[in-house]
Amino acid sequence: VMGMLLTIRDWGCRFASKAAPKTQVEFEYDGPSMKTEVPGPRSKELAKQLGEMQNVGAINFFCNYEESRGNYLVDVDGNRMLDVYTQISSIPIGYSHPSLMKVLSNPNNMSAFVNRPALGILPPENFPEKLAESLLSVSPSGMSRAQTMACGSCSNENAFKSMFIWYRNKERGHNNPSEEDIRSCMINQSPGCPNLSILSFMGGFHGRTMGCLATTHSKAIHKLDVPSFDWPIAPFPKLKYPLEEFTRENAQEEARCLEEVEDLIVQWRQKGRPVAGIIIEPIQAEGGDNHASPDFFRKLRNIAHKHGCAFHVDEVQTGCGATGKFWAHEHWGMEDPADIVSFSKKMLTGGFYHKDEFQPYRIFNTWMGDPSKNLLLAEVLNVIRRENLLEEVSRSGKALLQGLYQLQAQYPNLLSSARGVGTFCAVDIRDEATRNSILIKARDKGVLLGGCGDRSIRFRPALVFKEYHVHIFLNVFNDVLAEYN
Amino acid sequence: VMGMLLTIRDWGCRFASKAAPKTQVEFEYDGPSMKTEVPGPRSKELAKQLGEMQNVGAINFFCNYEESRGNYLVDVDGNRMLDVYTQISSIPIGYSHPSLMKVLSNPNNMSAFVNRPALGILPPENFPEKLAESLLSVSPSGMSRAQTMACGSCSNENAFKSMFIWYRNKERGHNNPSEEDIRSCMINQSPGCPNLSILSFMGGFHGRTMGCLATTHSKAIHKLDVPSFDWPIAPFPKLKYPLEEFTRENAQEEARCLEEVEDLIVQWRQKGRPVAGIIIEPIQAEGGDNHASPDFFRKLRNIAHKHGCAFHVDEVQTGCGATGKFWAHEHWGMEDPADIVSFSKKMLTGGFYHKDEFQPYRIFNTWMGDPSKNLLLAEVLNVIRRENLLEEVSRSGKALLQGLYQLQAQYPNLLSSARGVGTFCAVDIRDEATRNSILIKARDKGVLLGGCGDRSIRFRPALVFKEYHVHIFLNVFNDVLAEYN
Repeated sequence: VMGMLLTIRDWGCRFASKAAPKTQVEFEYDGPSMKTEVPGPRSKELAKQLGEMQNVGAINFFCNYEESRGNYLVDVDGNRMLDVYTQISSIPIGYSHPSLMKVLSNPNNMSAFVNRPALGILPPENFPEKLAESLLSVSPSGMSRAQTMACGSCSNENAFKSMFIWYRNKERGHNNPSEEDIRSCMINQSPGCPNLSILSFMGGFHGRTMGCLATTHSKAIHKLDVPSFDWPIAPFPKLKYPLEEFTRENAQEEARCLEEVEDLIVQWRQKGRPVAGIIIEPIQAEGGDNHASPDFFRKLRNIAHKHGCAFHVDEVQTGCGATGKFWAHEHWGMEDPADIVSFSKKMLTGGFYHKDEFQPYRIFNTWMGDPSKNLLLAEVLNVIRRENLLEEVSRSGKALLQGLYQLQAQYPNLLSSARGVGTFCAVDIRDEATRNSILIKARDKGVLLGGCGDRSIRFRPALVFKEYHVHIFLNVFNDVLAEYN
Repeated sequence: VMGMLLTIRDWGCRFASKAAPKTQVEFEYDGPSMKTEVPGPRSKELAKQLGEMQNVGAINFFCNYEESRGNYLVDVDGNRMLDVYTQISSIPIGYSHPSLMKVLSNPNNMSAFVNRPALGILPPENFPEKLAESLLSVSPSGMSRAQTMACGSCSNENAFKSMFIWYRNKERGHNNPSEEDIRSCMINQSPGCPNLSILSFMGGFHGRTMGCLATTHSKAIHKLDVPSFDWPIAPFPKLKYPLEEFTRENAQEEARCLEEVEDLIVQWRQKGRPVAGIIIEPIQAEGGDNHASPDFFRKLRNIAHKHGCAFHVDEVQTGCGATGKFWAHEHWGMEDPADIVSFSKKMLTGGFYHKDEFQPYRIFNTWMGDPSKNLLLAEVLNVIRRENLLEEVSRSGKALLQGLYQLQAQYPNLLSSARGVGTFCAVDIRDEATRNSILIKARDKGVLLGGCGDRSIRFRPALVFKEYHVHIFLNVFNDVLAEYN
């Protein structure tokens, strides 16, 4: 297969592309179209304006979202880019999807956007129905309860609190705090504010508020200068690719990490900071698209059970279909995959699912999410079902990974460790500088990509990214890589 | 004055009400209208449905937001209530305001609701303009920069981070972290994760995520079972009412608290946990509507300066006009009131203003707020200006406080310490049980109120709460109180 592909390339051929269905093309655009360098003059002018009011250090360019459609993001200088990064993986079904536009143009929905309630005390009439249609219709196995929140960090923060409360109630043997608990918690002291901990993994990312940040270990710049908690941090497996060549080494690596997890749980219990919960991503995303086997996660789940720790799966980036299953943890094939599953990004609302015994009866804030996001989410889920998008993602994902394997074979000094599930794929570049330069060159040719970890490129298209989009991407990527050979 | 009012009451008279302007009444309703007990049968049915999916322990009733208008909240059983609590103080200009409905029905705005960007990297074209029209048009004195966030807790969490980063850069004398900083922060250890602290006040409320929660001390139930930080907590002045009778005592009380603040700053510096910032509400809201004098805040601001601590004013509940000035800290009459001012609730978006030297160049997350909220906020601010709502609030607030003084004189065994600025008013009830029972009885008569602290009622109407609404409220409240005499 490799040889044949090399031959094709030698002939100057490109990745073939099936024609897109007509309706799709009519709504969308037929390909990237670049008019200026990026950022162009209009973007630069706006960045100058914004710079008077905000830090603009991270701004890439300004967008014309009105003109953006499907997989194509249009900027304010008229450049149209195939978006394989989708607002840090947060656009579920592409830009300006007609079904979502309809939700907005329906006068019956206006009130939901204008009258934002304090959801925990005064929910709107249709809230149970919309919750059932949206979040509850995609509940992870074993979980029939969901709490919405405004963003991913708030979701994880509140999930942590649920786990701490659950753990303390277990320790107490009942739900009634003592007078000393009540007195001491008011001044941040134990036993009211107990010395409990959350075990996390090196390379993990769970948000940037102070509780979350104590479990985030992807980049120093996120954590630097912020006070933290003395919580245990376990190694996440570093798998070697291609997987089939390193079966034994990878199994050993996973066993080593699991052993370390158990050691840390024991150590932290001994030093008076018991592990109330374990948090992990099914695929470490910000940390470099680090994968582990389903077997690793099943064993980790068992370790949590064995030591009485809650098991929190953070699906903020992996959730909502990008792996070809709705939740990435479904690939583990477990009936009882987790106690808590948190989400945000493509789900449009933050929040977390939980098992019955994690009743978050003390989890509360003013907004508790935003029902207008549930309205949009319900429609996103309709589209996913109607358009069979999970199947499409599996199909596109295969084409994408196959293409990456081919390019990796063509450019062995440039690319390595192509990996992924569904379209949730990544590839390593020889070094960070080259990776960053590839990202820029791809953008100049009309393809938006994102980096992760030290030197990886992550692919995070919307769920409407079809095989023909894969081919458009691969052709551009091939052209970019050719410049480095 | 008191005598005359008692006489009026003896005659069975009620608080007079000027007629409302015609257009106002046509849009709004002409008064409360109760059909069932609250929660009514439909609310109970929906609570049962929702109970299958979520904890419903805090749910009051379900609402028909489509039918809710201006100051009136309509529930699913057709009960129409004058809302003097407004979704925990988060509705700025009443329900279904025609100007906000217009924002929603304008097709040019649809994209902002459907295509939520990662604002920190790919803002929409109109973002600088909308930011200038909305947040920047009401910048606190000395601050020309604002960062949006998804909610109040995230705003405070990220403001804390800005203060820590600022403090560490000051300590280092430059912005370049050492190798040791970078290495140690990845494992939650100092010096990378430094032992810095935020000084907060007993009775304060700043949110419920883990960083915020370490500065929240209003109710034990918020904090119980959640690990915290060893940060200093100062007493907030407990003023005696009526203020004019306790001038000397209150001045002494404020001096005592300020002295304690300085002591704590010195103590925490000595024990190796320097105070990077001080956070305070201009009026402690959740904690019981606790006020302090402008003089107290001016002196506290100076203490922060003197000890090199950042000064963070949390205006999440006090901001956006309810005190008759746009920001409550304006009542202090200072040109340099704060280094950071955070907001949320009535501002519709979370976020914080900051001085130039608090450049949050490492403050980042996926959404960084929500531009659709800025769109709505820009229109809210237009309405506030067009309808002179700050003046209205001052006028209504005077009538409200005057009415509370009168009722307090009528029911001296029931009410005490009537207090407030603008419509941001409160009154103490003789005990918690009576307070809670008054809240229920008022609701049964069509007035929604909220409690705060141990035994206070807080008044948090929207900015469109006019004098005639005050009179409707006072009449109902009078009737309720009469039942306790």
